[in-house]
Amino acid sequence: MPAPPAAAPPAPTGPTALLDRLREGLPAGAVLTDPDVTAAYAHDMASFCEAGKPAAVVLPRTTEQVQHVMRTATAFRVPVVPQGARTGLSGAANAVDGCLVLSLVKMDRVLEIDPVNRIAVTEPGVVNAVLSRAVEEHGLSYPPDPSSWETCTIGGNIGTASGGLCCVKYGVTAEYVLGLDVVLADGRLLTTGRRTAKGVAGYDLTRLFVGSEGSLGVVVKAVLALKPRPPKQLALAAEFPSAAAAGDAVCRIMAEGHTPSLLELMDRTTVRAVNAMARMGLPETTEALLLAAFDTPDPAADLAAVGALCEAAGATGVVPAETEAESELLLAARRMSLVALEAVKGTTMIDDVCVPRSRLAELLEGVEEIAGRYDLTIGVCAHAGDGNTHPTVCFDASDADEARRARESFDAIMALGLELGGTITGEHGVGVLKKEWLARELGPTGVEVQRSLKAALDPLGLLNPGKLF
Amino acid sequence: MPAPPAAAPPAPTGPTALLDRLREGLPAGAVLTDPDVTAAYAHDMASFCEAGKPAAVVLPRTTEQVQHVMRTATAFRVPVVPQGARTGLSGAANAVDGCLVLSLVKMDRVLEIDPVNRIAVTEPGVVNAVLSRAVEEHGLSYPPDPSSWETCTIGGNIGTASGGLCCVKYGVTAEYVLGLDVVLADGRLLTTGRRTAKGVAGYDLTRLFVGSEGSLGVVVKAVLALKPRPPKQLALAAEFPSAAAAGDAVCRIMAEGHTPSLLELMDRTTVRAVNAMARMGLPETTEALLLAAFDTPDPAADLAAVGALCEAAGATGVVPAETEAESELLLAARRMSLVALEAVKGTTMIDDVCVPRSRLAELLEGVEEIAGRYDLTIGVCAHAGDGNTHPTVCFDASDADEARRARESFDAIMALGLELGGTITGEHGVGVLKKEWLARELGPTGVEVQRSLKAALDPLGLLNPGKLF
Repeated sequence: MPAPPAAAPPAPTGPTALLDRLREGLPAGAVLTDPDVTAAYAHDMASFCEAGKPAAVVLPRTTEQVQHVMRTATAFRVPVVPQGARTGLSGAANAVDGCLVLSLVKMDRVLEIDPVNRIAVTEPGVVNAVLSRAVEEHGLSYPPDPSSWETCTIGGNIGTASGGLCCVKYGVTAEYVLGLDVVLADGRLLTTGRRTAKGVAGYDLTRLFVGSEGSLGVVVKAVLALKPRPPKQLALAAEFPSAAAAGDAVCRIMAEGHTPSLLELMDRTTVRAVNAMARMGLPETTEALLLAAFDTPDPAADLAAVGALCEAAGATGVVPAETEAESELLLAARRMSLVALEAVKGTTMIDDVCVPRSRLAELLEGVEEIAGRYDLTIGVCAHAGDGNTHPTVCFDASDADEARRARESFDAIMALGLELGGTITGEHGVGVLKKEWLARELGPTGVEVQRSLKAALDPLGLLNPGKLF
Repeated sequence: MPAPPAAAPPAPTGPTALLDRLREGLPAGAVLTDPDVTAAYAHDMASFCEAGKPAAVVLPRTTEQVQHVMRTATAFRVPVVPQGARTGLSGAANAVDGCLVLSLVKMDRVLEIDPVNRIAVTEPGVVNAVLSRAVEEHGLSYPPDPSSWETCTIGGNIGTASGGLCCVKYGVTAEYVLGLDVVLADGRLLTTGRRTAKGVAGYDLTRLFVGSEGSLGVVVKAVLALKPRPPKQLALAAEFPSAAAAGDAVCRIMAEGHTPSLLELMDRTTVRAVNAMARMGLPETTEALLLAAFDTPDPAADLAAVGALCEAAGATGVVPAETEAESELLLAARRMSLVALEAVKGTTMIDDVCVPRSRLAELLEGVEEIAGRYDLTIGVCAHAGDGNTHPTVCFDASDADEARRARESFDAIMALGLELGGTITGEHGVGVLKKEWLARELGPTGVEVQRSLKAALDPLGLLNPGKLF
């Protein structure tokens, strides 16, 4: 057992000594220092988040190599920023000056798929879609499906506890992580959780690391729970004369005990942006489009019931997809919403406020009011069944005044979310973007407790400093 | 914000000063000191677990009163043992000498049931069955159903992260806890989590407290997720010539992608014990009885498919229940298993080993071998679908040699569970009973990390000392 890090004397400083030590335990080509190259690793997909210059990017391929990196970082007192595919939306993967960017993308093996126990064991760099397709071949499903699922990694999903379209029925990433191997700040290897369906041996360390944005340890292996592959889902689209009416429909659907596999909302701005980008032929005259899908034994019957509830809530049109292909097209439209909104004015800030679904209509109306007040285009798409909205501020970053208004409106939306009993982040995380807001949401005791846990696990503060708090 | 506890000077010592201070902030009758009365609060339902003599039992009714108790305990440096209905099976709620037993049973209000957002908000002393019935009236379901559900409390369920019969489909208590109010060791009030369907603002403190057996804080309020009420389940019973064949059937059922609402196993010893207690007329000639149930739209079809898989695994008889009443009778038989086994020889030690379900047959055969080796009766009932077994050692506590063998066989079963890639506890927790085994399961780094979190939240070590570690 290594001595606790605080007792170890700092190593000789200087960039050359650091790089030499790193290379001793890493394969050739695993330490990148060319500034043009390392700059590409310096930030994720969030706007308005500072990013520093890394001292190096390291690309380990094994747990032992990650341990070597962390031991070296501890010896040299160098901060480390763990990183996946950099598809995050809060700056959590952004470099800080002089840090090591610890990219896990080369640890990309699916180690095991076990249909009887319904688990998969993977390395962190496995791309979500790769795992999803691999388990499908065994008749299984790995539900978490963030919009970036074709490129984002399982390690990144775990770091940000990411969500997706499936959550209203299948829940978020956190609910699928049974156990982890984690390299701690000082290089010790910790195994958490289990491979069994149940287990309560000690504190739930697994869930502490899920969503910790690389600030408590480096995930090097994950045991993931799988589900049986459900039937293909069938979807409908319902048009509403106002976002509030669509919110009302969501409440009726959930209060009646339905469990759709998807319940998504796109407002008119989003619908138009998607049509403009991909000529999808979505109806542009409505104020809000609600998409509902079921993967039940009789989805047509469930869609009929939900369609009736939409009409009762004021829907002006309900169009059920008649084939899987039509359903897929609707989902594709929803999935491209954020990219399409980005094309509107070149830059976006994507909010991630989640409110109790009974307050959804109020949130949507409030965002409209905020857009008017700041004279901005704000498109809203939402995982409506979860009350998780992505009000997306579209602006021209070269217009300083518009950029300032964008930032202010973004904050106004978070304030509104908290006022409605919600959270500042349903699935994108805190990172750099929302760290001031985290303190507002948690309150002083919450922040104190969170900081005390951070200090217990990373006493030198080397892991992803400046994020979250 | 109160000063950190370490800075506060200890208060004048002595039992009278302590009791006087307690009474200052508690209603009349809320501090019990009569030794005959306090003795009744000194232990839960676990065998072979030491229990000390409490200095007093306190019965607060509000959060503020719990804060007063914890501030007083901190001032006087007195240990506190939080406690629900004492139905636990690992001694986690047992008193230590000179402690305050902090019973939450008087905080027993269901504060809110919200069908649109599918949440309930409760105090910790609400009995599981009371909540379950209350939400049913709203067309909702609170799935976690430990065998003691008619008497155990939600706070106790949260403290032990308890499971039940429903877990194979609906998961454990932890999956239903969205947010908590927790009084910390020094009396500060911490709010964790959220009321929304999703949320990733900061570390997941909620899950850290769930299953922490009262060692990190005192839960005074919980926001719980609810599900739509499913259709009534329909069950079948399948008879097997060996426990291993029943284990094989479980693997086939789960590998084929079925999701039963219940998949339970009773071995011959258990079946006979239940018949002896309640004349249930269960078939005594088989070695193992597997119960499967579905609450799907067409349970009869699902049962037919599962029945065929049972036959393929060697079942000698498959008897589907034809009515809900028949199904209920089968479940009632399963629910009374532990009580019935207790009647066999007067005392039981109930193990709680959970293995990957693919290793279930090996565990069942191993337990048979252990029973033979120690010349003991060990009945096994199991949440077979989860691989969570309750090998139950039946013995005469007045026979010292038999009691010693019982304890040894109990340990041998845990060793076997770990060998098979399992955990020492699927749902009953560690408490006093398994604390030596927890260290074996977690390993040195695991224990160090767990202890560091305990120290961060309870630096004086006042909350439920001597449990877990």
